[in-house]
Amino acid sequence: MSKATRLTVLEQQLGHTFSDAQLLRQALTHRSYAANHYERLEFLGDGVLNCGIARCLYDQFTHIKEGELSRIRAHLVKQDTLVLIAQDLNVSNYVLLGEGELKSGGLNRPSILADVVEAMIGAIFLDAGFDAAQAVVAQLYAPLLKTIDPSNAGKDAKTQLQERLQGQKLPVPKYTIIDIQGAAHEQLFTVSCIIDALHIKTQGEGSTRRLAEQHAAHLAMTLLDNAGKQHPSKRG
Amino acid sequence: MSKATRLTVLEQQLGHTFSDAQLLRQALTHRSYAANHYERLEFLGDGVLNCGIARCLYDQFTHIKEGELSRIRAHLVKQDTLVLIAQDLNVSNYVLLGEGELKSGGLNRPSILADVVEAMIGAIFLDAGFDAAQAVVAQLYAPLLKTIDPSNAGKDAKTQLQERLQGQKLPVPKYTIIDIQGAAHEQLFTVSCIIDALHIKTQGEGSTRRLAEQHAAHLAMTLLDNAGKQHPSKRG
Repeated sequence: MSKATRLTVLEQQLGHTFSDAQLLRQALTHRSYAANHYERLEFLGDGVLNCGIARCLYDQFTHIKEGELSRIRAHLVKQDTLVLIAQDLNVSNYVLLGEGELKSGGLNRPSILADVVEAMIGAIFLDAGFDAAQAVVAQLYAPLLKTIDPSNAGKDAKTQLQERLQGQKLPVPKYTIIDIQGAAHEQLFTVSCIIDALHIKTQGEGSTRRLAEQHAAHLAMTLLDNAGKQHPSKRG
Repeated sequence: MSKATRLTVLEQQLGHTFSDAQLLRQALTHRSYAANHYERLEFLGDGVLNCGIARCLYDQFTHIKEGELSRIRAHLVKQDTLVLIAQDLNVSNYVLLGEGELKSGGLNRPSILADVVEAMIGAIFLDAGFDAAQAVVAQLYAPLLKTIDPSNAGKDAKTQLQERLQGQKLPVPKYTIIDIQGAAHEQLFTVSCIIDALHIKTQGEGSTRRLAEQHAAHLAMTLLDNAGKQHPSKRG
């Protein structure tokens, strides 16, 4: 697949087609690869993301106080959460890294994945304005926003999944490492999350066992949500 | 002057006329005064302000790196700076406080003044969208943004003023407390800043001597800038 075609796939996932395709390319460029890299876009995107998430939460939770809203927002914009979004978008397929960074496992480094998500949001803001960027933020975060229970927010995906299963009197999920690739300090863990009672099995990836488990738990919750949507009669 | 007329003055200073005047009223309402208070708007406005300032800095400083941009933004959105903006807008004339807060000096409390500025920005965002809020942020911060020298950013107003005068081989300004009102812990300091060589005298107010001096220094720098604009031939 050509590079241009691949970026079209990413644009489809983002739900935004760039007028200035160079902005997307810059958002994907690490400073080890070229001088026109993503760091200034990341600075801008961090602000746009914070504001976009604030608006989503303000609209969704009309009776929650400021302190609680701030706590939920902090959870949604922190690096671990941005890494989940990056994984949903397969960001590591698109990032442009210098050779040294590539060899030292930069494609799976949480800080790079999170920064690129912010940089892409900044790039959309420059390309088409705040409302376009806000729409992309709302879409990227829709699965996470849907599962926010204010009393749960701030809890990580594994904790939320466990509590959700316990609420249905189901046993806790089983996490198993099924693959480790790369040398020390550059490892990529693959972990499965199995919920026997619901016939759910997901696989998460991450640069640590903890991150891979969180990713697998996040995917399991997405499956649970979609199952709920497809069979609404089974809900409640 | 009626309350409605007074809010019109504030709207003129903000450069925004509200479609929904209730939003402005809410942004000015402390929780000690009414249940429909400013705290959720402040949460929203914090995000809008961060994003708006990020955009201003991104556009103004096209060659500054992300770390430096973040440092400048942190300086511009911190409480001390928001208090200066609140003082420019005479926010304490409009804030609605409960009786207890009023008696304990709430009208000059830096946290309240800063929160109200953020809440008003959040209210404009809800009233008319991001671009309208961004325009107000750019206008409120124009005097500060104009004086930002990246090597100075992060320095407080007194330090900047002093360095500026030293750069012109002029003596340092003189700060004098000219008034203290209120009982302990509720005091309002008035401090003058005098630059003899330039025939400049300003008066700053604040809940501490330090804040009042910063305010006076900020006003002195604004005068210096305006003098430079009116007599461009005298510049550099």
